[in-house]
Amino acid sequence: MKGVILSLAPDARIVDISHEIPAQDVLVGGLVLARAFPYFPPGTVHLLVVDPGVGTSRPLLLARTENYFFLGPDNGALGMAFEREPPREVIRITASHIFRPEPSPTFHGRDILSPVAARVAQGVPLSQFGEPASPAVPSPFPLPEPQADGRLLLRVVLADRFGNLLLNLTERKYRGISSAKGGFTLEIAGRKVERLSRTYGDVSPGEVLALFDSSGYLEVAVRDGSAAIELGCGRSAVALLSL
Amino acid sequence: MKGVILSLAPDARIVDISHEIPAQDVLVGGLVLARAFPYFPPGTVHLLVVDPGVGTSRPLLLARTENYFFLGPDNGALGMAFEREPPREVIRITASHIFRPEPSPTFHGRDILSPVAARVAQGVPLSQFGEPASPAVPSPFPLPEPQADGRLLLRVVLADRFGNLLLNLTERKYRGISSAKGGFTLEIAGRKVERLSRTYGDVSPGEVLALFDSSGYLEVAVRDGSAAIELGCGRSAVALLSL
Amino acid sequence: MKGVILSLAPDARIVDISHEIPAQDVLVGGLVLARAFPYFPPGTVHLLVVDPGVGTSRPLLLARTENYFFLGPDNGALGMAFEREPPREVIRITASHIFRPEPSPTFHGRDILSPVAARVAQGVPLSQFGEPASPAVPSPFPLPEPQADGRLLLRVVLADRFGNLLLNLTERKYRGISSAKGGFTLEIAGRKVERLSRTYGDVSPGEVLALFDSSGYLEVAVRDGSAAIELGCGRSAVALLSL
Repeated sequence: MKGVILSLAPDARIVDISHEIPAQDVLVGGLVLARAFPYFPPGTVHLLVVDPGVGTSRPLLLARTENYFFLGPDNGALGMAFEREPPREVIRITASHIFRPEPSPTFHGRDILSPVAARVAQGVPLSQFGEPASPAVPSPFPLPEPQADGRLLLRVVLADRFGNLLLNLTERKYRGISSAKGGFTLEIAGRKVERLSRTYGDVSPGEVLALFDSSGYLEVAVRDGSAAIELGCGRSAVALLSL
Repeated sequence: MKGVILSLAPDARIVDISHEIPAQDVLVGGLVLARAFPYFPPGTVHLLVVDPGVGTSRPLLLARTENYFFLGPDNGALGMAFEREPPREVIRITASHIFRPEPSPTFHGRDILSPVAARVAQGVPLSQFGEPASPAVPSPFPLPEPQADGRLLLRVVLADRFGNLLLNLTERKYRGISSAKGGFTLEIAGRKVERLSRTYGDVSPGEVLALFDSSGYLEVAVRDGSAAIELGCGRSAVALLSL
Repeated sequence: MKGVILSLAPDARIVDISHEIPAQDVLVGGLVLARAFPYFPPGTVHLLVVDPGVGTSRPLLLARTENYFFLGPDNGALGMAFEREPPREVIRITASHIFRPEPSPTFHGRDILSPVAARVAQGVPLSQFGEPASPAVPSPFPLPEPQADGRLLLRVVLADRFGNLLLNLTERKYRGISSAKGGFTLEIAGRKVERLSRTYGDVSPGEVLALFDSSGYLEVAVRDGSAAIELGCGRSAVALLSL
């Protein structure tokens, strides 16, 4: 993909955001992009190819938001970025004269999305790449689930390389809910975390804590340790939050 | 290596193709390069340092093909690229005035190949780096082995991070052999795959399939799954193909 | 971090040295930097964020040496680089007008160090970033420990991806000690290595050897194999050296 982009746009600056997306994991791929994209310069072209449906008829999308361009299969992965910065224009990519000749049915990232991304970076208008469309597949990011007893059921959406556990609750949403109530008790894997911390140093080494991470998601961590190991938890584990 | 290259050629664009070559695995290193190099701009300098023989008297080679330059130890790793694009000029690197002073006997990639690559990228002619030579070590890519019963014995040469299994048969070779016959039955790990698919979506989720991958190698995959895990197969596993 | 740097310094060249620093491992992070930095062009800004203390009051440092700039938390990680190239000027970073607004208490790398690094790369003088300071935390690199019987107790500081074991003895220090004596016997994991080799090819395949690696540290290796697996040793294992 990098070779194809540089062949068409020799001055493109290519930045790898992550080499650690699990194979075919649309949720993690989308989340990694959503956490990183707002820090890039305006005009950046963000290309995300987590593509279990490659070669089927699922559409490939090209979107423009206030500050960026986004490309990827219509499988929900871009949805987490769009929640932060809504698309103003979405195109279903059909302009096959821009693709590499005879695109491989198993690598659209290389043969379709990379040449399109290179042309977008060079300023070709979006209308040249296809017809207006809307994303059909919703974001796989799960919503917090209110329980009968008033608590919120949360889910671990990502266990990062530090063993920190990211939950499906953003700070913005939390502030909206909690203002009326006030408390904070999070139960996860048989442990209770009774307050929200600001940073790891707020607790003693080895202690479990909860905080909003640098991207605004609720995170369960162990100071100087791994919450994933300490709590025996990973992706899809659940937690209950009382406010 | 990147620091050495940028010290000599500040405008060089450096692209990492892979961080996942197993230590000292000449076959996988050569295969990863062979699958990626044709997509880079003409004039790209490809540097491949899988080098179990570092510090011994094995030669270091510099080659020019129709579109590219290649550098690496003479250990066969470049052979898979040369099968796709044959070298027009091969030099044994001896011009020690271009090396870093007192090259480490355990890191020729940094002290010899990187400064040479930087100078090649800047347009220094190949004759300045040493004497004409021929690669002495053949490609480790195994040939398909015809069996007494007419079938072809194939070998897994790479299990990628999706769990796809790459076999030692290219589409070009297959088309040459199969035109006269017509059938396709691949036996691997006790399973039979009775037809060639075009893409993963051609079969149901969880089903085993065979297709030619985006680089033209025969691949065994499981839709939405891992063939390596599902079939319990990895590098060097064998398969039998009836045509 | 890359997005923040490129937003402020669009022409910056960003090079990843490693994606393999274990979480919060200040010693390995510092050692990887110390082995790589001298090969980069003069003026390079080296940014190292292994930061278990993020969000606490530990200072962030900016240093200038003969050839380079270094940034990182004051936790000892930069100490191994400073042993090779001592700082001529050290600043405690306090110029909050250069930080991103409302820096996250868990990601100073992105919100404080990246904008400062971008400005340093653009030539802003160090005095603009804070007040003169001295590193408070010493390097975690352990010293060889002389034993009562005259031997030196050494420790494995890094097991690399080849399974090579790096010990806490530099070639310079060894030459200073050994000149008066002459022998070399290294005991590790019940094995004796009786001489110093120059390169892997000096021994037979599968044999254990000791050499000074390409960065000048004593290394225990197995030719065409993994010393870590063969000797069952890893980080913090000990060895005894008789001279």
